[in-house]
Amino acid sequence: MRTARAAVLAAPGRPAELREFPVPAPGPGEILLETLASEVCGTDVHLRDGRLAGVPYPIIPGHVSVGRVVEANGVARDAVGNPLAPGSVVSFFDVHATCHSCYQCLVARQPNRCPSRRVYGITYSAADGLLGGWADNILLLPGVRTVVLPEQLSVEDLIGGGCGLFTGFAAVDRAEIRLGDSVVVQGVGPVGLAAIAFARTSGAGTIVAVGEPAARRDLALRMGADETLALADARTEERAERVRAATGGRGADLVIEASGNPRAVPEGFAMLRDGGRYVIVGHYTDAGTVPVNPHVDINRKHAEVRGQWGSEFHHWTRALDTLLRYRERIPFAAVIGRRYCLEEANQALDDVEALRVTKAIIVP
Amino acid sequence: MRTARAAVLAAPGRPAELREFPVPAPGPGEILLETLASEVCGTDVHLRDGRLAGVPYPIIPGHVSVGRVVEANGVARDAVGNPLAPGSVVSFFDVHATCHSCYQCLVARQPNRCPSRRVYGITYSAADGLLGGWADNILLLPGVRTVVLPEQLSVEDLIGGGCGLFTGFAAVDRAEIRLGDSVVVQGVGPVGLAAIAFARTSGAGTIVAVGEPAARRDLALRMGADETLALADARTEERAERVRAATGGRGADLVIEASGNPRAVPEGFAMLRDGGRYVIVGHYTDAGTVPVNPHVDINRKHAEVRGQWGSEFHHWTRALDTLLRYRERIPFAAVIGRRYCLEEANQALDDVEALRVTKAIIVP
Amino acid sequence: MRTARAAVLAAPGRPAELREFPVPAPGPGEILLETLASEVCGTDVHLRDGRLAGVPYPIIPGHVSVGRVVEANGVARDAVGNPLAPGSVVSFFDVHATCHSCYQCLVARQPNRCPSRRVYGITYSAADGLLGGWADNILLLPGVRTVVLPEQLSVEDLIGGGCGLFTGFAAVDRAEIRLGDSVVVQGVGPVGLAAIAFARTSGAGTIVAVGEPAARRDLALRMGADETLALADARTEERAERVRAATGGRGADLVIEASGNPRAVPEGFAMLRDGGRYVIVGHYTDAGTVPVNPHVDINRKHAEVRGQWGSEFHHWTRALDTLLRYRERIPFAAVIGRRYCLEEANQALDDVEALRVTKAIIVP
Amino acid sequence: MRTARAAVLAAPGRPAELREFPVPAPGPGEILLETLASEVCGTDVHLRDGRLAGVPYPIIPGHVSVGRVVEANGVARDAVGNPLAPGSVVSFFDVHATCHSCYQCLVARQPNRCPSRRVYGITYSAADGLLGGWADNILLLPGVRTVVLPEQLSVEDLIGGGCGLFTGFAAVDRAEIRLGDSVVVQGVGPVGLAAIAFARTSGAGTIVAVGEPAARRDLALRMGADETLALADARTEERAERVRAATGGRGADLVIEASGNPRAVPEGFAMLRDGGRYVIVGHYTDAGTVPVNPHVDINRKHAEVRGQWGSEFHHWTRALDTLLRYRERIPFAAVIGRRYCLEEANQALDDVEALRVTKAIIVP
Repeated sequence: MRTARAAVLAAPGRPAELREFPVPAPGPGEILLETLASEVCGTDVHLRDGRLAGVPYPIIPGHVSVGRVVEANGVARDAVGNPLAPGSVVSFFDVHATCHSCYQCLVARQPNRCPSRRVYGITYSAADGLLGGWADNILLLPGVRTVVLPEQLSVEDLIGGGCGLFTGFAAVDRAEIRLGDSVVVQGVGPVGLAAIAFARTSGAGTIVAVGEPAARRDLALRMGADETLALADARTEERAERVRAATGGRGADLVIEASGNPRAVPEGFAMLRDGGRYVIVGHYTDAGTVPVNPHVDINRKHAEVRGQWGSEFHHWTRALDTLLRYRERIPFAAVIGRRYCLEEANQALDDVEALRVTKAIIVP
Repeated sequence: MRTARAAVLAAPGRPAELREFPVPAPGPGEILLETLASEVCGTDVHLRDGRLAGVPYPIIPGHVSVGRVVEANGVARDAVGNPLAPGSVVSFFDVHATCHSCYQCLVARQPNRCPSRRVYGITYSAADGLLGGWADNILLLPGVRTVVLPEQLSVEDLIGGGCGLFTGFAAVDRAEIRLGDSVVVQGVGPVGLAAIAFARTSGAGTIVAVGEPAARRDLALRMGADETLALADARTEERAERVRAATGGRGADLVIEASGNPRAVPEGFAMLRDGGRYVIVGHYTDAGTVPVNPHVDINRKHAEVRGQWGSEFHHWTRALDTLLRYRERIPFAAVIGRRYCLEEANQALDDVEALRVTKAIIVP
Repeated sequence: MRTARAAVLAAPGRPAELREFPVPAPGPGEILLETLASEVCGTDVHLRDGRLAGVPYPIIPGHVSVGRVVEANGVARDAVGNPLAPGSVVSFFDVHATCHSCYQCLVARQPNRCPSRRVYGITYSAADGLLGGWADNILLLPGVRTVVLPEQLSVEDLIGGGCGLFTGFAAVDRAEIRLGDSVVVQGVGPVGLAAIAFARTSGAGTIVAVGEPAARRDLALRMGADETLALADARTEERAERVRAATGGRGADLVIEASGNPRAVPEGFAMLRDGGRYVIVGHYTDAGTVPVNPHVDINRKHAEVRGQWGSEFHHWTRALDTLLRYRERIPFAAVIGRRYCLEEANQALDDVEALRVTKAIIVP
Repeated sequence: MRTARAAVLAAPGRPAELREFPVPAPGPGEILLETLASEVCGTDVHLRDGRLAGVPYPIIPGHVSVGRVVEANGVARDAVGNPLAPGSVVSFFDVHATCHSCYQCLVARQPNRCPSRRVYGITYSAADGLLGGWADNILLLPGVRTVVLPEQLSVEDLIGGGCGLFTGFAAVDRAEIRLGDSVVVQGVGPVGLAAIAFARTSGAGTIVAVGEPAARRDLALRMGADETLALADARTEERAERVRAATGGRGADLVIEASGNPRAVPEGFAMLRDGGRYVIVGHYTDAGTVPVNPHVDINRKHAEVRGQWGSEFHHWTRALDTLLRYRERIPFAAVIGRRYCLEEANQALDDVEALRVTKAIIVP
């Protein structure tokens, strides 16, 4: 039997190590991919360090990936109806197995909170098989939603955004942004960059991006920000003053938190105009509490605050369609800092943690 | 010239004192009222104690009042088109003078954040005249929105709710409550009681009310709550557990904060289901910051938080229509704890501050 | 093997006839019910007369039914988590088999337009088995959403509304009704009666119901209408004038079409205020075109028109919760005109067609 | 006293004629403009032909205009706070005098339906003075909302769109368009072209424009349409088929009717996907009824239809901000077919009526 190599996180706090796995023949409804690229995301650093609860170590990380179809067992079309066959280059929605039966799925209609949902590269054990992207091959289980990459899109156009592309899209969608809205995006990692790009694509007015380091602020400008603010150069109140100066003295119509840093939250409120909307999408892990003033920040401000937890499939497909149409304005390929082979997975994690690259990708 | 007596707050920290004012002949577009009742609200305690900024002391308090028309100069109809004449019993929207010209009025379309707005009993100096309800007479300036009380409604039906009636209505409206939504109302003062009553009138599912003292919790049950939770008997986590028990283990679809107590905010998040809505309406004054966890409370919870600042005229007129139609289920007259004459204004303030009465009213 | 009797529509235009079917042992995930009651709906008349396309005759009609569990194979809870066992009285959502994979399910998120959806009593052939309610027994396929009837609700409380109960709920939900909205309901059959009841439960202002015959208008008043208008007594413009008189001269905030009669549509527009919402829910079958004036009815009126196609499971469960809580105000048991045994199915169809009963039910 | 020339429509059915008017000194709050350009709109053809009710002939047409400030009496800033002084180039919102006191203004909050609203060039008699743009000078009454044109915008950038620019913006806003939505725009006059431009600016997916003549279809492509369909070449069903082919077989997510032709409405429904939104904005005048099938077009389609009546000031200011930011993608100056002097007003009307020019402008 053929084997595939994978970079495995065996236990919290341990570096990635290379292991071999048998390559299965796909069962009915399954698809076997040859991995073309898989992202290294900030979440992967958290996974290595053991900061997420309930992770079934050992795992093969890599939630958003692109691969070429080796074999598709009884699957002839992708989730949106395009033909799919051996040789097709496909992306797939890492979240699946939502149950369609629980309160979240049926009544609240927010499957992103379904307790049954599984995520490639995060909630599967390596013992379950090739269910993460840092491997030569990936097995797509029955029902995993695939989208064949149109030929006008390169693998890099998508993987340069990684999961942040879809999370950023979901944040802009959740914001119900309107033509001309002034926007602050807090954080200039992949989620923040995607939020900037999709806000600009939505016809936003002034966009101000806040974050470090300088190289990411440059990317923010390429994605469509008008102005960037560094964290080191000024204090919160000075940055808030800059935002007011850029928004007729009022503060931004919309603030999108994409930093994961709790301190961003009070600053975001200070940047928000009366009656504005504040989308919090960057707090994927628990980084502690932060002081909020219910009178000043919410009540008197008549503010609206919306949490966005990950994304749903409709975000995924709509984001890809938008990327295809407006790709010259959304240069995610340029976000890729470096390609790493499987043996370099730990280097990739270190570089992401140190913010030395904005988007690292694994190319097995 | 005839004179009217008024209870005046001359300076922050000073008790109310009785003063005499000349009763003006109403100018064009103005209406002179004989005061039938004016409320004593928690805000009036704040005004006495100097906790609001920018108040032009001395002032005549009393923002929500009901009066009988003595003379109407060139005004023959109320704001919704009903005939108005000497002898008519009218309520009036205490907020007025929104400018229709600023960003808030014209573009954001939230006149409750218009910087020009004035409020009877709060933003007018006694030097401006009889522009507060704790007086024998009230002068309505041109353009103040009046609503003639239909004869099926008593003065008490309205004034027993006071401004809280309209603020509670606005909170339920802002919540976009839907049939069957489970609701927690934090706070059982006039705003909370109104929120309970209007949530019930909207077809809410389970309603749990949280607050002190016991007499107010009894009123909460009369307004439509299914269950009440005391602050003294249990800790936050126990109360949150009670809410989950009452909501299929999920937490409430909707939480309305109507307490003004910052500690209510973390508790409210703990009571909210994933994807729920949290309306914060009780923080009319600054009571400091409170710890919020952006990951747990907002992001992972996919929550939506909405501040509601006061009310607008459309809330006022719709609340009165709703009160008229469903008055047997909204017993605000029963909320009135005691009637005070003008000379007893300080007693009224003390009783409100000590929570000895839920709604105190001034009857000159 | 035991057999069950069923009333079968063998072909379009033919009367119902009694047939015997083997009673299967439920397979894994299946539930066998003993039928307690099944409704006779206007759609069943259309089915008998062949006015729906794509119906796989012969069929066992009866889409909304209540039954007692005879045997449940591996199913211990209903769709909302309540215990379910032999002897439980259950209702079930007649629509099922939505695919969770198509554009409608995944992207548009309106499974009521999923092309894979199947409906008990309509889209199944009698050759498929006991998949309609006009039978001694009903077989629930795996995944059919059941809700155990709480003991405070009688079979009649639910079946008196039948599918109209849920469709009417969905219409009110789609309307995003708000406290105090004035409402016109066109049609006083089960859908219209439910729309009246749920609009009243939602805190509507004036409700005017329009339709025939007089007995149904009496039921409309019991469900919460303030006023009813007959079709025979007046012309469209006179009825519209009555609506304007009841709504301050403006027309209704909300009109719900629940008649299935195309002529209701121009009348509905005439009754709608500028900026009002018009929900069209009654046109389950094609009754032809109707003249609409885009300038007068929609554009100048700044109107919003919303079609509601059937209901989704979240409507079903929320409607049952609402029915449970407010059942004393929603007397659907009183809507039942007569009970028919299986042998009387044709009599039931004739009585429904002739409007001799508002809700006919089959009790095998 | 100085005089100004104006082109006047003296009575329905009569050609425009040149008249002289005294140029007033602006009173308090008033502004006198020297006209730089005024549009000729399809409505002006209707005004000449007497197809609008209640027009106080004789009138000076020209509702959307740009002028240079000659004298501003006590006005130092425009409606959004920019400095305004003699020499400033300003546009102004032609709709004004909304009352802030009626049901539409106060409760429905849709001042575009306020019965007191007045419109420059339409609802004023020439006897009222220079209150239309087809004149050497225009007098802005107190409270007319002005916006100083930023220097990056030329007069042509705005007047090339005319009122259609703002109406088209309002239609896209009313549509609540989302990233990637497929759009059909029916009509390629100024409203349709603006709808195309602002839909594209909002990140729409495929945009298909339908209309005549060919020169306007070319402009539609410049504004961002992907594909145009002629009326002459094909029948409704063929065009609908083309739309389905461009939208994955489903029909468009959004259709915007901007044609004023009733026959567009059934075609628009045929082009709309299940659950899509249909905004009807082009029916400014009554062109008769049209057959709609409530079952096929609305109910089974689960459609949402929204009328948009004109625009509000917030559309105006947001549209100008958007135009400023994205002007290189919104080439309205290119829409101007010809400039006409006042003496050529009838030629302009004839050319507009015959569709010989897309946008005609009067340059006195």
